[in-house]
Amino acid sequence: MSDKPTPKKPKTSEDGNKVDDSNAEGDMDSAIIELEMCHNELDKLNEKENEEVIAMDQKYRKLRQESYDKRSKVIERIPDFWFTVFTGHPDLCNILTEEEEDCLHHLRKVEVDIADNNSGYSLKFYFKENPYFKNDLLVKEISYKQDKMASESTKIDWIKPQKKTAAKGQGKKRAREEPKSFFQWFSNNDDPTNDKIAEIIKDDLWANTLQYYLPDPDMEGEDDSNESSEGEDGDEANGAKTAKASADGTSSN
Amino acid sequence: MSDKPTPKKPKTSEDGNKVDDSNAEGDMDSAIIELEMCHNELDKLNEKENEEVIAMDQKYRKLRQESYDKRSKVIERIPDFWFTVFTGHPDLCNILTEEEEDCLHHLRKVEVDIADNNSGYSLKFYFKENPYFKNDLLVKEISYKQDKMASESTKIDWIKPQKKTAAKGQGKKRAREEPKSFFQWFSNNDDPTNDKIAEIIKDDLWANTLQYYLPDPDMEGEDDSNESSEGEDGDEANGAKTAKASADGTSSN
Repeated sequence: MSDKPTPKKPKTSEDGNKVDDSNAEGDMDSAIIELEMCHNELDKLNEKENEEVIAMDQKYRKLRQESYDKRSKVIERIPDFWFTVFTGHPDLCNILTEEEEDCLHHLRKVEVDIADNNSGYSLKFYFKENPYFKNDLLVKEISYKQDKMASESTKIDWIKPQKKTAAKGQGKKRAREEPKSFFQWFSNNDDPTNDKIAEIIKDDLWANTLQYYLPDPDMEGEDDSNESSEGEDGDEANGAKTAKASADGTSSN
Repeated sequence: MSDKPTPKKPKTSEDGNKVDDSNAEGDMDSAIIELEMCHNELDKLNEKENEEVIAMDQKYRKLRQESYDKRSKVIERIPDFWFTVFTGHPDLCNILTEEEEDCLHHLRKVEVDIADNNSGYSLKFYFKENPYFKNDLLVKEISYKQDKMASESTKIDWIKPQKKTAAKGQGKKRAREEPKSFFQWFSNNDDPTNDKIAEIIKDDLWANTLQYYLPDPDMEGEDDSNESSEGEDGDEANGAKTAKASADGTSSN
């Protein structure tokens, strides 16, 4: 209490006259100390909130990871799942060469790992034994280091040399900087700041996987009404609803 | 279970041959149902996280409000607190006319209310009875409505007509769009998208109030060493440390 803070201005009453200092000054000193305590309290609140935000983020990251792991195991039971998803995705299908499409029959698992404190992410492609390359895992890692983006990817150990063809979608109308093929995109780390393919895989393909696997109702010629009362159990979650609506379109069996 | 989803592609094995459908198909159907359940689970996780984020935000908003209310009560015991803070703030002092500076002797309370879900904020200025205007509360409210910013402010009920002078800081070098005076800023709601004064009050003055009340150590000519061991209680929170360091500079009494 000996280091009593003093305000910038000499104390004056509102009309500019000097104030009788005896009690007033004592109360002002204690008020300033209380003010400091209020600011301490606010600082601690902000710090605590920050810690809780981080803890919650980690909790949900972990829970989501468990769900995604479970999903990966289920997906491995479905033949040609990732082939169907990649070739059915409106953007990704355009960067696939014929050979790459064939290669995707051997893609058994895809994983997207978001790094802690959002400092980047990895796209992991797990392959079964295949006639194209020896790797069973291809990883493309995108990271933000000191405000700069960087990316690196597994060197592909090709068994048969790749044909230098471009993907079917690479017509004259497509932007020049778009990758010519899936593996060309995968192996090229020249300009990681503008990697739209990586972002599509992370944000769209990964989150909406089921949607790209199931048939698109707009593309199917069935005339089932969308909202038909089929006595489904009242599942309200968005993804499932979309998925079911899509699925309803074609009950071919 | 009757509305069995069907994938886009006919089932083929990896080498393109037809698969024996008996058991494989049954497992695939159940896999797709499990896949839907995984997506449901993920949707619910995201929803739950969202709810928790909102609840946590509200919890800390309430706790902070309690601290700020306590602070306001303490501040009202300190004569000329807000006058000292406004005239000591490097940006705000520049928009004050001499008359306005005098008027600030009557400002007894300032409040910043952040609206729920960050849809805007209010700056509230509480005045004691004063010779300038009849209002005891002046409010400037900035809101984001349908992606557009809007602001409105209490109409000031002047007792004596305002002189048309500009603030001292309004030299030729200052940008044209800066307000000419505090009350001119307060009453002008023509361009709320770029209201730097409102933002300074909300983000800087409000959060760092104590810092602008206590003397700036760089401005004081005292040669007390900054880190002198005066046997303070080990208070580590930032605001208090800064405040104490500042206060150490001038133990005039």
